[in-house]
Amino acid sequence: MRKRAARYFVGVDIGGSKIMAGLFDAKLRLLDSLKVNTKAHRGATEVLGRVVRCVTDVTERCNVGLSQVAAIGVGTPGVVDYKTGRVLLAPNLGWKNVKIKKRLRAALKRPLDVENDCLVAMRAIYEIELKRKPQHVVGIFLGTGIGGALVFSGQHYRGGGGVAGEIGHMIVDADGPPCVCGGRGCFELYASRTGIVNRLRAAVAAGEKTSLFRLLEEDRNEPGALRSGLIKKAFEQGDALVRRVVKEAAEFTGVAIGNLVNLLTPEVVVLGGGVVEALEHEMLPVTMRKARERALFLKQPKIIASNLGDKAGITGAAVLARRHYQEL
Amino acid sequence: MRKRAARYFVGVDIGGSKIMAGLFDAKLRLLDSLKVNTKAHRGATEVLGRVVRCVTDVTERCNVGLSQVAAIGVGTPGVVDYKTGRVLLAPNLGWKNVKIKKRLRAALKRPLDVENDCLVAMRAIYEIELKRKPQHVVGIFLGTGIGGALVFSGQHYRGGGGVAGEIGHMIVDADGPPCVCGGRGCFELYASRTGIVNRLRAAVAAGEKTSLFRLLEEDRNEPGALRSGLIKKAFEQGDALVRRVVKEAAEFTGVAIGNLVNLLTPEVVVLGGGVVEALEHEMLPVTMRKARERALFLKQPKIIASNLGDKAGITGAAVLARRHYQEL
Repeated sequence: MRKRAARYFVGVDIGGSKIMAGLFDAKLRLLDSLKVNTKAHRGATEVLGRVVRCVTDVTERCNVGLSQVAAIGVGTPGVVDYKTGRVLLAPNLGWKNVKIKKRLRAALKRPLDVENDCLVAMRAIYEIELKRKPQHVVGIFLGTGIGGALVFSGQHYRGGGGVAGEIGHMIVDADGPPCVCGGRGCFELYASRTGIVNRLRAAVAAGEKTSLFRLLEEDRNEPGALRSGLIKKAFEQGDALVRRVVKEAAEFTGVAIGNLVNLLTPEVVVLGGGVVEALEHEMLPVTMRKARERALFLKQPKIIASNLGDKAGITGAAVLARRHYQEL
Repeated sequence: MRKRAARYFVGVDIGGSKIMAGLFDAKLRLLDSLKVNTKAHRGATEVLGRVVRCVTDVTERCNVGLSQVAAIGVGTPGVVDYKTGRVLLAPNLGWKNVKIKKRLRAALKRPLDVENDCLVAMRAIYEIELKRKPQHVVGIFLGTGIGGALVFSGQHYRGGGGVAGEIGHMIVDADGPPCVCGGRGCFELYASRTGIVNRLRAAVAAGEKTSLFRLLEEDRNEPGALRSGLIKKAFEQGDALVRRVVKEAAEFTGVAIGNLVNLLTPEVVVLGGGVVEALEHEMLPVTMRKARERALFLKQPKIIASNLGDKAGITGAAVLARRHYQEL
């Protein structure tokens, strides 16, 4: 077998509701991808089994054997010890101290690296989308929760302990409502999907009207099932409550960006995640106006929405895999 | 003359109310220092003249000629273009676009570098006090306003445009009172000396009692004249209002540190500035408790008050001068 034959990469994105795996060629072009449900409530062993099947299926579909895969990269929510490849804590998955790298390597028998999903998405954005051009980049991901990732002086920044980038629990409103983290008025309460949905629920409970009302009712036993796409639909139909809550989410995102721009003066702020994918056009103009109002020195910080959409995770994981391969 | 004879360094710290200059030997040991009033209201030419006299006087007092000074470092408030040595904007001094490097070099005829005062203080803290041991450090300076400085991966971080570190206008309370920057609930409104004094004034205006009352009255036409030392005195005498406002300042400092620790996971957070010098023992325990409550991953961030006190500025400026010399 020629050496080149082994140069496929697989990128895996483990999310709270979906697992996605993508097969990439040596130049990191996406050949095919596959999505399955995470079924996190069934526990880590079941989830990791589903990851293995998803990886096997996507390679088989392309007639590529696992032996031809040079390396696999995996992005996962939560606090990841990237040296040992353990997930220390991932509340969205109900995981605590899961040795994901060791277990997936044993099952897939390929070189494999695991990293926090925001860091992984930032790898795709920085290496592929921005082509490493800016020196300092802040990434903000609005999804089920809110995550962040930082590039300083052309390097992915991990900070002490390797767990930098937690911006969801930045307090932006000290008088605000309590947060599960123990704080009050965390950014995540206003601009994550969970935060937006909770604020809609609270308004409905307080007697406000919305076209989402019935769906919220039906959704009562399955929080999180109200997807960002549905919020977009209600917004487009002119639902006043949804418009107000989304506008406030966009404004708080602008406040958070302003705080980060004043602190770090990055050349680019990039937004991603499910909420931004669904509501980019509704949110971005409001967010940009607020952020620019708040930016004291850098009057025109470049604020963009990533164009990688839901492929940011698998693409970044493939970048991680290639990096692993290059370091071998 | 032997080459070694020229290896003195001068560090200058320009503040809103005082100018300090220090003479250092080749090993950056402080030989002598001198303070004069800034008299900022008389304009930049007068202030720069006072800097020149202060530098001349401190060297003369040590029988060192200016020709024996290898280089001079200057720390100044405001937004500094460190490449050209211009102060783009310094509201505390009333300066806009002042070519401080060019003008001081012309007067003193020595190699000279100018940098933002927080960056300069961080040089002293990082190089001298912390001996470059930690990799990631956040510095927070509570003075007339609030400033910040960052060290990432052992390097002073400037960000795009060289003006990173603005943490005074981090919004920590979106429902809070308006700030001069156009925002609401900025950190500076709660924990800078100006913020503390304004909150005391507002409480007195609303009918609350304080032993500082008479002093606040006398001070009405000279904002800022109520020094941190006086606040400490009232605190020690058990003044309930002062205790509450200082406690809130300490708590908001804890919130800001929590936000920064979650974002950047530094190994050390170091506090400095006049408010911390005066009120370290009153504030630090409250600040640390709040910050640790807020720190999600890094459970025990190391939070210290700088031991350099009001010498941080001149010492850091001397470090800047030596760096200039080493680069010649």
